[in-house]
Amino acid sequence: MPELRKDPIIGRWVIISTERAKRPDQFATVQEGPPEGECPFCEGFEFKTPPEIYSIRPRHTAANSPGWKVRVVPSIAPFLRIEGDLDRRGKGIYDMMNGIGAHEIIIETPQHIANLCDLSEADIASVFTAYIDRIVDLEKDKRFKYVLVFKNYGWIAGGGRVKHSRSQLIATPVNPKRVKEELVGAHAYYEYHERCIFCDLIKQEIEQKDRLIIETEGFIAICPFAARFPFEMWVLPKKHSCDFTSLDMPMRLNLAYIIKQVLSRLKKGLNDPPYNFILHTAPFRRPTKAGYWRTIDYDYHWHIEIMPRLTRVAGFEWGTGFYICPLPPEDGAKFLREIQI
Amino acid sequence: MPELRKDPIIGRWVIISTERAKRPDQFATVQEGPPEGECPFCEGFEFKTPPEIYSIRPRHTAANSPGWKVRVVPSIAPFLRIEGDLDRRGKGIYDMMNGIGAHEIIIETPQHIANLCDLSEADIASVFTAYIDRIVDLEKDKRFKYVLVFKNYGWIAGGGRVKHSRSQLIATPVNPKRVKEELVGAHAYYEYHERCIFCDLIKQEIEQKDRLIIETEGFIAICPFAARFPFEMWVLPKKHSCDFTSLDMPMRLNLAYIIKQVLSRLKKGLNDPPYNFILHTAPFRRPTKAGYWRTIDYDYHWHIEIMPRLTRVAGFEWGTGFYICPLPPEDGAKFLREIQI
Repeated sequence: MPELRKDPIIGRWVIISTERAKRPDQFATVQEGPPEGECPFCEGFEFKTPPEIYSIRPRHTAANSPGWKVRVVPSIAPFLRIEGDLDRRGKGIYDMMNGIGAHEIIIETPQHIANLCDLSEADIASVFTAYIDRIVDLEKDKRFKYVLVFKNYGWIAGGGRVKHSRSQLIATPVNPKRVKEELVGAHAYYEYHERCIFCDLIKQEIEQKDRLIIETEGFIAICPFAARFPFEMWVLPKKHSCDFTSLDMPMRLNLAYIIKQVLSRLKKGLNDPPYNFILHTAPFRRPTKAGYWRTIDYDYHWHIEIMPRLTRVAGFEWGTGFYICPLPPEDGAKFLREIQI
Repeated sequence: MPELRKDPIIGRWVIISTERAKRPDQFATVQEGPPEGECPFCEGFEFKTPPEIYSIRPRHTAANSPGWKVRVVPSIAPFLRIEGDLDRRGKGIYDMMNGIGAHEIIIETPQHIANLCDLSEADIASVFTAYIDRIVDLEKDKRFKYVLVFKNYGWIAGGGRVKHSRSQLIATPVNPKRVKEELVGAHAYYEYHERCIFCDLIKQEIEQKDRLIIETEGFIAICPFAARFPFEMWVLPKKHSCDFTSLDMPMRLNLAYIIKQVLSRLKKGLNDPPYNFILHTAPFRRPTKAGYWRTIDYDYHWHIEIMPRLTRVAGFEWGTGFYICPLPPEDGAKFLREIQI
């Protein structure tokens, strides 16, 4: 059983994974990208994955058979396990609980395509529909507080051996530290200004223009002011909303357009680099009546962060929380703005 | 001029470096480890570095000439610049200041040796003396709040082209986020228990033994309970102290012994892996009379963190602050405990 452990000093939860455990000496060799094997995610090979949890497919097709557009399956090497109770407990100064959660793979296309940006806008919008339907379903499980949707593209970014476009989601019984920090920071700003900090940020970026990559009817893509990485990108909805799942179909298509644009520019301009893609949305079951979380609807704003992996990150950046970005985000934004797709 | 920028939402400061700036398209190729060139850090090649700021050398030898044991020089590509004022300012919702600070290279040996663990214990103790002397000197500069001492060993860990053992230090005008979090967490524990959390942790680790790698007269080395990485190691002084610079000579030698031990075991057991090494000590000029920081002397505890770089870190771990460690620290500690040096 994997275990969730809390750092007693700074309060960060860590998953101590046992399902993927290797013997200690197997860590000795630094992993190189292995050759690609047979793909279990392609149409016609549905039997190679665990049975699907969800799919977008025509009514006349059966589950786990061809014909689907998007398919969601449990991870075969889950970081967290779905069955059991949390059993929160302590030992001396340490706190821990069972590694209960969900870990699912969102297979984004039946074809053997590696990069999300090579799908059509309609197909990308279907991927977002799958995200939304799975988040809404997982929220019903009272053990979970948050669902992280993310994407590791390319070996260096933590991607797998098989190059078939997919996302992952992890439903967790705790709120991730970074999300909590965003909620707390946004709340403090709201308390003072009675405005959403993200809405103010969007307004300033549209006016200032120097970090703006694209603006569409519904969204902006920017290189953020305090970027940690060269070409780090944030995509934010212009209309205030804390909750990704409230995105309607026209706006899903609008989001698909801007995501396809930024990922295609990254691919074209920077030689198809590895990247990570993370969705930050409001936590589950936010109270809407009274108390601390009351304002989440007003003060938080969902968004997507994309982090190209073009530089080596020195471990001291983890150890200190102090990042050094070797490219001003204004230069990164200008470069990405000028790429023609 | 490099710039320090604050993320408006979560309050993290980032260095936007301009001194090492490349053109945007130069990021396109993922960097491979280049071949090693001529070494500017070896004895006899002192003219290849900027003039030394500090050295440990016999009295009869001149600065920037052979004969030294440890030498400290300014970085030739500094992340921060020493001259100028901070000039804190805002633009709309954003806060920034000039990238003022110090960035120095601590050359740990006159010989062309790559790994700190291959130095003698006496020579490693001299490296700690250099850390202490430089920290004490930099504290006099009222613009700086903290000095980060760290070491990037191996290309993947952010190490340079030349394989000559060295550390770096960065003096910063802000407290790094992670250090702040430790101070706040340790303070909260002290307020409740009136004990240092690190002292309690050390006591529990010595009793429980399963995460203990080595215990000496003055120190313990453990794999921490909520490890983020396989074989992550913390080295902590058994006697309470918040301030690394207060370490006396016998204890520097004692620390040199345990650091040589753990780094040698890492090298032998895991095929000389890349690693990062970080010193966490109290911030500069802690008030000792009254107010919030009064307790730092009682509630904080300096330590060293060593993070081997054996796994790919998925960017979502940065984006969420949620780490997945594929090896229980008890297994890592057992493996390291059993290696004979």
